[in-house]
Amino acid sequence: MSDYQSIDGGVCAPLGFHASAVSAGIKNPDADRLDMGLIRSTSRCVSAATFTINQVKAAPVRYSQAANESHDFQAIFANSGNANACTGETGAKDTTTIVEEVASALGIAPQEVGICATGVIGIPLPMDRLMPKIAPLIDGLADGKGDDVAAAIITSDTHAKSYAITVDIDGRPVRIGACAKGAGMISPCMATMLCFVTSDAQLSKADLQSAVSGCVDHSFNRITIDGDMSTNDTVICLANGQSGVEIASGTAAESAFRSALQHVLLHMAQLLVKDGERTTKFVTVQVKGAVSTEDAQKVAEAVANSALVKSSWNGNDPNWGRIIHAVGYSRAHITEEKIDISYNGTPACSKGLQAKTPMEELQKIAELAEFEITIDLNVGTATYEIYSSDLSPEYIDFNRSEYAYWKQARKDGLV
Amino acid sequence: MSDYQSIDGGVCAPLGFHASAVSAGIKNPDADRLDMGLIRSTSRCVSAATFTINQVKAAPVRYSQAANESHDFQAIFANSGNANACTGETGAKDTTTIVEEVASALGIAPQEVGICATGVIGIPLPMDRLMPKIAPLIDGLADGKGDDVAAAIITSDTHAKSYAITVDIDGRPVRIGACAKGAGMISPCMATMLCFVTSDAQLSKADLQSAVSGCVDHSFNRITIDGDMSTNDTVICLANGQSGVEIASGTAAESAFRSALQHVLLHMAQLLVKDGERTTKFVTVQVKGAVSTEDAQKVAEAVANSALVKSSWNGNDPNWGRIIHAVGYSRAHITEEKIDISYNGTPACSKGLQAKTPMEELQKIAELAEFEITIDLNVGTATYEIYSSDLSPEYIDFNRSEYAYWKQARKDGLV
Repeated sequence: MSDYQSIDGGVCAPLGFHASAVSAGIKNPDADRLDMGLIRSTSRCVSAATFTINQVKAAPVRYSQAANESHDFQAIFANSGNANACTGETGAKDTTTIVEEVASALGIAPQEVGICATGVIGIPLPMDRLMPKIAPLIDGLADGKGDDVAAAIITSDTHAKSYAITVDIDGRPVRIGACAKGAGMISPCMATMLCFVTSDAQLSKADLQSAVSGCVDHSFNRITIDGDMSTNDTVICLANGQSGVEIASGTAAESAFRSALQHVLLHMAQLLVKDGERTTKFVTVQVKGAVSTEDAQKVAEAVANSALVKSSWNGNDPNWGRIIHAVGYSRAHITEEKIDISYNGTPACSKGLQAKTPMEELQKIAELAEFEITIDLNVGTATYEIYSSDLSPEYIDFNRSEYAYWKQARKDGLV
Repeated sequence: MSDYQSIDGGVCAPLGFHASAVSAGIKNPDADRLDMGLIRSTSRCVSAATFTINQVKAAPVRYSQAANESHDFQAIFANSGNANACTGETGAKDTTTIVEEVASALGIAPQEVGICATGVIGIPLPMDRLMPKIAPLIDGLADGKGDDVAAAIITSDTHAKSYAITVDIDGRPVRIGACAKGAGMISPCMATMLCFVTSDAQLSKADLQSAVSGCVDHSFNRITIDGDMSTNDTVICLANGQSGVEIASGTAAESAFRSALQHVLLHMAQLLVKDGERTTKFVTVQVKGAVSTEDAQKVAEAVANSALVKSSWNGNDPNWGRIIHAVGYSRAHITEEKIDISYNGTPACSKGLQAKTPMEELQKIAELAEFEITIDLNVGTATYEIYSSDLSPEYIDFNRSEYAYWKQARKDGLV
């Protein structure tokens, strides 16, 4: 990654982006943690976004998806602690109320505010706690607060995720900054994740959308922790042109920008998997030699989502038998006798049979915190790659009950 | 189920079926447990079978599938402790060696012996321990040993599963007996399961095959524990006609037989889920009001296989938010605002929103060892039902490593 220089500041690293975060006690009125964040560009910007394909969509997703069609977001508002999903008319009304308040204070149109939420499903937002915090949130807008927004959006993440780089385009520096959250309910095709990206590059909305869609497909759509896809997944990218570097369609500059954006999104996606709920492994599942990309994807997803495969990763067990059994039920075109499986390049299964490698050697690889499994189907040339994690007893234990949320919501008179 | 009288004897309950089981130390030479079983009809019978649709198929599955096309099984041989899967030429040769030995001793054709195996994948059978036990296995054939075969085929099951009924057909008793195994790697479309069924009804091979295929589709294809589908799943049914009750195609007698067979297979399938690896719940997921059966199935499978939904079941949490999120990503045709979700008939979610039911009431249901979740999509009339279990921290812990098997296999010189 020598092309890119990592810099501080997250979403505030690019020129002309301010941020702010406050604590509103959304999930728990007594908890003193940041749970509302705001990002805004100090000059007009273009925006692009991608959203969950879950048909059950949270109110803020519905709002932002529609607004992104006709407008460019100039600001992004986000809260954690409550997903505002499955909240019907109330959820839609609350979304509008928040967006109108923020837009009015910033002097922009309501459709120019992107809005996102993450947290528990089915409970209306505690508006009586949230609304009074919008004024201080806006008052706090300033440069250098990118990491605060990163902290405000996390839920079960163990740490905030912030990243920024500079990239040289046409001999001049362009900056890309990002923050992201997500640790469970993570599956290919987005994930329970939010990612906000800022850049001071200057490009058209169409080019930005094309870059974001393409890069999301090769980053957030390639990760899985537990195979569950959320109602709230959103990636929003703002580009304000303050670097003065103009990026025209179809130029080498555009290609350089896309590569840099891809690098940033892949980095963020991998951060999510590495911080997966109670996970201990980061496993890259690389499928080769498939008849088609769709087939390679089916195999990668079957393996990366298998509870038995993920359990064996948790146990440091280089269990290729469970991998090949998942390949077998993936519905891809395969020939059992042609399948090769390796761990970090060391053969575990050769032509469908136990390879000659001593198991002790494979187990040493399976004990690593990060390793790569390559599955070569040897029936074609298509490939696909997924980033995955193990599944631990602690994951189940951690996700056994959200009942405490309901008790708080009852106390709040929300349910 | 007042139509059927439960009787003792398992697969030996129908007239004219003998069984035997021995201990060969297949998984562990020092363990003194039954791990080889044999069932045979004392007179000519017809047979029917269904097999895994996993494309990675164990050697015994390949053999039995081919033999069942051209012959009727007169006997079924099974071993636990080793799946003889991903064992290539060696596995195929070992299968033939076993089958020929058994057939020769029984005086039948090799293709008249059905063969099954269950256990670890990728290690050749320990033939030096297995083969010397075939003679005592055959010598032991006798009436009344149905439960021994049931015990010989279990792996991670906590108890053997044996069942038999009598059903009145045309005023005369017909018996159906069964044994089954399977506790993990269980997913719709069979499961890691073996089920052997015997009956003294007299019917054609074609009618028996049609009955078995139809009933498996409504029993073993409707269960899920961990969403993994195995390489060895097999159901074999033998019918020898010794009851003297002739069942002709398209008669009320045929329909009565099918219903009874359906009852037995569903009972066995539910026994498997209830004995799922380290599970604590038996949850029926009933989907109604779908546009098509395929859609209803997609919804049922998405919900029943979601790691987050299953974790909440483990925690006694009536978490309808996770259920609706899984409905949302199922790719079925849905309208969020029309979805109703109930626990044992008590509404949890009404038209996509939290229902008025006090959460305490729902939690009392979620605390039960068995409950039913009904998801009404309210967009059509199609239905589908799946039997599922929770996912526990202990499941993951239990499945973390099979490495001990490999160490034994190394000691045995098999790998």
